Amino acid sequence: MVIVKVGGGSAINLEGVVKDLSTLCEPVVIVHGANALRDQITEKLGNPKQTVTSTSGYTSVLSDQAAIDAILMSYAGLRNKRLVELCQRHGINAVGLTGLDGRAVQGERNKGIRVRENNKNIIKRDFSGKARSVNAPLLKLLLDNGYTPVLTIPIADEHGYAVNSENDDIVNALQAALQAKTVIQLIEAGGFLADASDPDSVVPTMSVAEVAQREAQVEGRIKRKMLALKALTQSGKVRVIMADGRVDAPITNALAGNGTVIE
Amino acid sequence: MVIVKVGGGSAINLEGVVKDLSTLCEPVVIVHGANALRDQITEKLGNPKQTVTSTSGYTSVLSDQAAIDAILMSYAGLRNKRLVELCQRHGINAVGLTGLDGRAVQGERNKGIRVRENNKNIIKRDFSGKARSVNAPLLKLLLDNGYTPVLTIPIADEHGYAVNSENDDIVNALQAALQAKTVIQLIEAGGFLADASDPDSVVPTMSVAEVAQREAQVEGRIKRKMLALKALTQSGKVRVIMADGRVDAPITNALAGNGTVIE
Repeated sequence: MVIVKVGGGSAINLEGVVKDLSTLCEPVVIVHGANALRDQITEKLGNPKQTVTSTSGYTSVLSDQAAIDAILMSYAGLRNKRLVELCQRHGINAVGLTGLDGRAVQGERNKGIRVRENNKNIIKRDFSGKARSVNAPLLKLLLDNGYTPVLTIPIADEHGYAVNSENDDIVNALQAALQAKTVIQLIEAGGFLADASDPDSVVPTMSVAEVAQREAQVEGRIKRKMLALKALTQSGKVRVIMADGRVDAPITNALAGNGTVIE
Repeated sequence: MVIVKVGGGSAINLEGVVKDLSTLCEPVVIVHGANALRDQITEKLGNPKQTVTSTSGYTSVLSDQAAIDAILMSYAGLRNKRLVELCQRHGINAVGLTGLDGRAVQGERNKGIRVRENNKNIIKRDFSGKARSVNAPLLKLLLDNGYTPVLTIPIADEHGYAVNSENDDIVNALQAALQAKTVIQLIEAGGFLADASDPDSVVPTMSVAEVAQREAQVEGRIKRKMLALKALTQSGKVRVIMADGRVDAPITNALAGNGTVIE
């Protein structure tokens, strides 16, 4: 079993990924992003991102209903189904699912952000949350019958509402349920960069302890990603490969160990 | 087994439909449109419909890749997943699928339209086709495990490409595979109208023979719909109810025989 996380950047070679996966002899679950597409669509539709600043000074994007609509159009609609189409064209019997479908990915809605409005502290809730578990029986039902699940956001909250979530947390929930031997994360870089501004600074291997060290050194979004990576790798039973999604054969390239191998 | 076709108009009471279905004790498959939403989105995105006129003078919409993108955003993305969300909120464990997903609906791509361009007759192909069959094992797998399939376009052509299709043909392919006792078609009218301009002219019942008679009397899009209805009803084994999707409890209303009952 391989879990493949495909980044949502515009330079990812989706057709290369799918062609490559069609020759793989193992069951696969795909999780994908679509942030570049989402940003394009929201700009065209004229619904720019809403951000709020908490009373503690932390700025974050507000996932209002318009933001969820944009996720549904870009992640669940355009990107997910074009990826499923690519799979079908190359002989992979893919089934695209958001976390809502059959409650494939269930999570917990965020409690809200404390903001100051009109000289009052109020709690602003949005439609964001954290993925906690997957519907393993549904995914196994599909896998056992020869289907390849292709997952993306939104996920379902406790009451069945669509909420935005981090794909990293979806991967972690998947891994907890399916115990894949390998997780491949395809990104728009050669691997984990020691220096984000230097594309040649790919770290070839990282131990689980090093992941924790690096997590302690960074801030913001990258810290959240490193925290997720720490949680993913700490079982010690999975090989995680962060590799380039832009090359001709991204899966072959990753499995050959090109990129950053964490084990 | 009940197949519910939900029209793509903006006045359909989706929450009413879902609340109503949540109390039904029979397995359900939902097929839905989203044409009003699609038109809104294409207008905002600035990709207006492309039409072509054939050498025989028949004008039709060209389903180019931008049109398929718009279908993916509106039908597969926004409408399908908001409907799945509504189901999840009301205790129906829905799984949204396009025809691409697991090749749930397979069809035949149209051969193209003969058009005159630059003083030459050429064949213009687009991404449209006719639904021919459904993946019954996949749908039964889901139904047998307590999931409610929520289907929409696009469908998969012979080579796995996404193609536009009529929802009526999807319903017919579903019915051929699943043999539902009842097909409910929810529309933005009280039922089949004897006079399209008179909302009070609902025809309360229609025999299969009458469907064929009416089909012979009409033209254009409505003829295509009547042809599909003729094919659906001619087995004599299904009750088709065309009923109002705008009322409070559209399913209860339809099952009470309000609308046009064809049997």
